[in-house]
Amino acid sequence: MTKATLHFPFAEYQRRIAKTRNAMLVRNLELLVVSDPSNMAWLTGYDGWSFYVHQAVLLGLEGEPVWWGRGMDGNGAKRTVFMGHDNIVGYPDNYVQSIERHPMEHLSQVIVDRGWKNARIGLEMDNYWFSAKAHATLCRTFRVSNLHDATGLVNWQRSVKSDLEVDFIRRAAKIVDAMHAKVFELVEPGLAKNVLVAEIQKQAILGADGNWGDYAAFVPMAPSGLDATAPHLTWDDRPFKKGEGTFFELGGCYRRYHAPLSRTVYLGKPPQKFLDAEKAVLEATSAGLEMAKPGKTCGDVADAFFDELKRHGFEKDSRAGYSIGLSYPPDWGERTMSIRRGDKTMLEPNMTLHFMPALWLDDGGIELSETILITPKGAECLCRTPRKLMIKS
Amino acid sequence: MTKATLHFPFAEYQRRIAKTRNAMLVRNLELLVVSDPSNMAWLTGYDGWSFYVHQAVLLGLEGEPVWWGRGMDGNGAKRTVFMGHDNIVGYPDNYVQSIERHPMEHLSQVIVDRGWKNARIGLEMDNYWFSAKAHATLCRTFRVSNLHDATGLVNWQRSVKSDLEVDFIRRAAKIVDAMHAKVFELVEPGLAKNVLVAEIQKQAILGADGNWGDYAAFVPMAPSGLDATAPHLTWDDRPFKKGEGTFFELGGCYRRYHAPLSRTVYLGKPPQKFLDAEKAVLEATSAGLEMAKPGKTCGDVADAFFDELKRHGFEKDSRAGYSIGLSYPPDWGERTMSIRRGDKTMLEPNMTLHFMPALWLDDGGIELSETILITPKGAECLCRTPRKLMIKS
Repeated sequence: MTKATLHFPFAEYQRRIAKTRNAMLVRNLELLVVSDPSNMAWLTGYDGWSFYVHQAVLLGLEGEPVWWGRGMDGNGAKRTVFMGHDNIVGYPDNYVQSIERHPMEHLSQVIVDRGWKNARIGLEMDNYWFSAKAHATLCRTFRVSNLHDATGLVNWQRSVKSDLEVDFIRRAAKIVDAMHAKVFELVEPGLAKNVLVAEIQKQAILGADGNWGDYAAFVPMAPSGLDATAPHLTWDDRPFKKGEGTFFELGGCYRRYHAPLSRTVYLGKPPQKFLDAEKAVLEATSAGLEMAKPGKTCGDVADAFFDELKRHGFEKDSRAGYSIGLSYPPDWGERTMSIRRGDKTMLEPNMTLHFMPALWLDDGGIELSETILITPKGAECLCRTPRKLMIKS
Repeated sequence: MTKATLHFPFAEYQRRIAKTRNAMLVRNLELLVVSDPSNMAWLTGYDGWSFYVHQAVLLGLEGEPVWWGRGMDGNGAKRTVFMGHDNIVGYPDNYVQSIERHPMEHLSQVIVDRGWKNARIGLEMDNYWFSAKAHATLCRTFRVSNLHDATGLVNWQRSVKSDLEVDFIRRAAKIVDAMHAKVFELVEPGLAKNVLVAEIQKQAILGADGNWGDYAAFVPMAPSGLDATAPHLTWDDRPFKKGEGTFFELGGCYRRYHAPLSRTVYLGKPPQKFLDAEKAVLEATSAGLEMAKPGKTCGDVADAFFDELKRHGFEKDSRAGYSIGLSYPPDWGERTMSIRRGDKTMLEPNMTLHFMPALWLDDGGIELSETILITPKGAECLCRTPRKLMIKS
């Protein structure tokens, strides 16, 4: 029997599962079909780039969870999950990307075989990895009245991190600091952007302070000038130019745990408007961070941040942050709380968020973000990179 | 008005759209809701790491396509798509990852406003980016009898590449060759695996021969020893060891077009079983490639490959390849044809495939793959890295 490499003690998985089962009981669910790879990893340890095919973890109210996926990935499960091999179930390869059969037909049979035919089943209905067709296929075997939307159920259990998880995020923060240091060391007019991104990604994987780097759930965003009016452009080989701002939204990752951090670099002398935006973002950030403590809501933080921003004459029509932690592409967010007016999520110690006060203006963008840990005393910024516009002339 | 940067001449997009509309007519569809970012990019040029929120391209039977997505990503659309700004529609940020409202409610209104209320609509039902909840939400506005499964409809139009696309894949092939050269140059016992992967990823983004590197749709797979019994494990910081094999499944990417290539490195003297597996894979590959020409089916190629493998005493229970081209994470495959017994897809000139004859054995794995172009004369391997087990002692 191959031995699995777990990143946490077994008790940590037991605690996570118990917490999730409590949430299932509240919702009167007897089985969860967990399709989100981050949730699968959090519950069982499973780690592999296999989420491009249908896979899931089945979590009932007792016993071990069941890993289900493509047959060949069962070997990856054996190397990474804590469960016994009886609870690792693979489907044959002719189900993969076939128009004749759907993997969810196989999963339906597994669910029936394990006695959950008439169970009340929770499904992650609004998840990248649970397609409309997957749902339609399950509906052929199970009574629709037994299928319930459990989107986010596991994600919410992940909000408050264990100390071990916080430690991983602290390590990731060291990595992203090293990535930004590399940016500031190398960026200059004439340097092709892909050459800089190559060095950033090298640093990301080398890691920092003895912590090796895992792949982050986003690739670097690094748009310059007018491209920086758009938040999610990546890179090409055009050179950096004098008189242009570039924001770098980067993430360090340690064993799938993330610390994102954004900084903006200006080559040359920034126009006054850019400096005004920097001042507005910095003061609004201070106001928001001041508010980010146990007992306050995400909405309270948003109000403090957006009100201060407005006082400086800037408007931002998008959220200013979100919960982060363990993740797989395409998003390092946990898709639960957002720093957004009206969000009623109460902050608790050991929550971790990407506080993301970005401004995308008509002619450029400025991002100065922080990965924060909620402590009993308030928000702790986990990175050490100075929070300011980086100017290189 | 900001100007978009297109990677192909406008006529190429027109050709792609006309081809897709023909397929819509055959299926009697009046509107396609295209959620797959690869299909969105192929039809309109759209490029951005924004597929972690709901977005789509609407393609009717006439007029320009419509880009629809998160408001802030509308700026990215303005920088990358050919359509006029009237056909770039953003939804407000409070739809993002909200439990109160779903972006598909907004999309429903856009579809109605543009006169498609009673159209026969094709949906990419089995796509990562079209969730069960997205479908359920559309069902609240549109008659279910008007909603049809169009999974793969656009993907299949992408199978035969234009010469311009083939040129991009050739450039990507140069990049992946440079990545494998870096592996062979640096790998040695004692080297931490993440240090090697850092250099591989740096090379991937630096590119090769003047072609800058884009991010590939997979991160490097690089499992060693027993981990190599599993196909989709990534890396950590454990050092390479003498007497161990490691396979490297890597992909070069040029402007979103991929050339994947796998090679296996053995440090020290490989055991006879490993050499036998190499011989079997190489001869089965030759048999498969010999068969890969216009007029033959993917199933014919699979028969030639698997029969030869069997003659050598090896069984493989998974497919031996798939169509590749333009893609976004998490899969560089096009999710259409597979090199699998019984696949009736007829090969045509300018198809491109990842011929992937991997063997995952009980105690290790061997991968020696090729990115191939179907030419009138047969299969052309686009990479130059020698096809053999790389032994370093």
